[in-house]
Amino acid sequence: MLQKCRWKSLVGKFIGIGVGPGDPELITVKAVKTLKTVDVIAVPKTHADAPSIALSLIKHILEERAKPAEVLELVFPMTKNESEAKKCWAESARLIAEKAESGKTIAFITLGDPFFYSTFIYLFQTLKQKYPHVTMEIIPGVTSLTACAARAQVPLAEKDEVIAIIPSDIDFKLIEETAEHADNIVFMKCAHRFKALMPILEKSGFTKNATVALVRRCGMSDEAVIIGRLGDVPEWNIPEDYFSMAIVKRSEFPINREKEDLL
Amino acid sequence: MLQKCRWKSLVGKFIGIGVGPGDPELITVKAVKTLKTVDVIAVPKTHADAPSIALSLIKHILEERAKPAEVLELVFPMTKNESEAKKCWAESARLIAEKAESGKTIAFITLGDPFFYSTFIYLFQTLKQKYPHVTMEIIPGVTSLTACAARAQVPLAEKDEVIAIIPSDIDFKLIEETAEHADNIVFMKCAHRFKALMPILEKSGFTKNATVALVRRCGMSDEAVIIGRLGDVPEWNIPEDYFSMAIVKRSEFPINREKEDLL
Repeated sequence: MLQKCRWKSLVGKFIGIGVGPGDPELITVKAVKTLKTVDVIAVPKTHADAPSIALSLIKHILEERAKPAEVLELVFPMTKNESEAKKCWAESARLIAEKAESGKTIAFITLGDPFFYSTFIYLFQTLKQKYPHVTMEIIPGVTSLTACAARAQVPLAEKDEVIAIIPSDIDFKLIEETAEHADNIVFMKCAHRFKALMPILEKSGFTKNATVALVRRCGMSDEAVIIGRLGDVPEWNIPEDYFSMAIVKRSEFPINREKEDLL
Repeated sequence: MLQKCRWKSLVGKFIGIGVGPGDPELITVKAVKTLKTVDVIAVPKTHADAPSIALSLIKHILEERAKPAEVLELVFPMTKNESEAKKCWAESARLIAEKAESGKTIAFITLGDPFFYSTFIYLFQTLKQKYPHVTMEIIPGVTSLTACAARAQVPLAEKDEVIAIIPSDIDFKLIEETAEHADNIVFMKCAHRFKALMPILEKSGFTKNATVALVRRCGMSDEAVIIGRLGDVPEWNIPEDYFSMAIVKRSEFPINREKEDLL
């Protein structure tokens, strides 16, 4: 037992930090404080020379540090090949465990929140299984969920309302069944097939007057918001964009047409 | 048109600010900056002499201000009488509109996020309908949703998983139907009937090995976290507490028993 405690005290910590949805001011005070003191900043990238939005959001914080942080780039290629993906996670987990074992504190930065559809989860799980002696901590962040609602000025849910959060690439039948029992639906990363979802929602009992808000690149310089009724959506001009989210409300929430901004 | 623009420029602004889930450091940089400059801080209370948790979380920020803020207490009694509640919202909206019309900026503080099951929504709707010339802004906050997941170290959702967020007081049949199509469920303010929900989840296809995390008073000094399997819940000792939230995952997420902390 003594052995175990001594081992623990020598090992550093791995911290997952949510840096918020895209607006650099929507990061928490706790995240800022932590980013100013950790030894290593781990940055996920899809390939070695890809820019990192998460890193660009915290650049000014890192510049204020007395001692520069070590930046550790972790490459996770977008792949459907599970064994290839697992190999990447295992290698990244090994690098992080090695740094933690040398007493360092490592912060992994992630857009939004580390536990809300983030790639951080795979790394967290790998470390938990293979290196259980490394202490982990999660600093939650503002998600695109509430940030998009705020920008569109459309409340997510009140009183006894049920919210369903749906990754829009799932099967239409499952979307239809899920939507049937929800008052409010949030579609994650949906712009590429948002129009195709409207007839599915109508089958689930949403009327043409249901409130719809679509937000692209929330809080970023090229943000766009479009608000209207479900019946209007077929006429919308929606460019594809990975960073897009929609809120659909069964209720006919009053819409301030002045606030509309075409995509 | 010119008339309208001039009127708009004279009128102040009403800002809904999420101050986070309970840990004073889980407030955003944007919220802190705004709270240091607004003229009025509007604080919701259930009755005149009730303390405000939201106000206690930002006290240190208000103390750092060069010029003290005016604090406007708004009383919204817990009532099931809708016309009585509406009267309170109308009176509060009138007070806020009056201040905004005199050119002041008013910040309404709310625990978590202003659009996620917050009383702020009623005030927002009343102002939007009755005083549409008052500009409104929402500053999103970290919700209990991601804060509880972070404390319990249980991811909310990954890949194509569907999340259902369910206020736990709704009808059992609706809970059962909603749960059927969800991979992960979040029960809001659920401690008082959490044990009764377990058989409902089993009917919806959740096994006794499903992962369950219950978090009470997340981020506050008397926080408690309990993690286990759905089959363990009947043996748990769960005191009632308004500020409680649970995450139930269809998957058997590995649990680190060392991290368990009985309620």
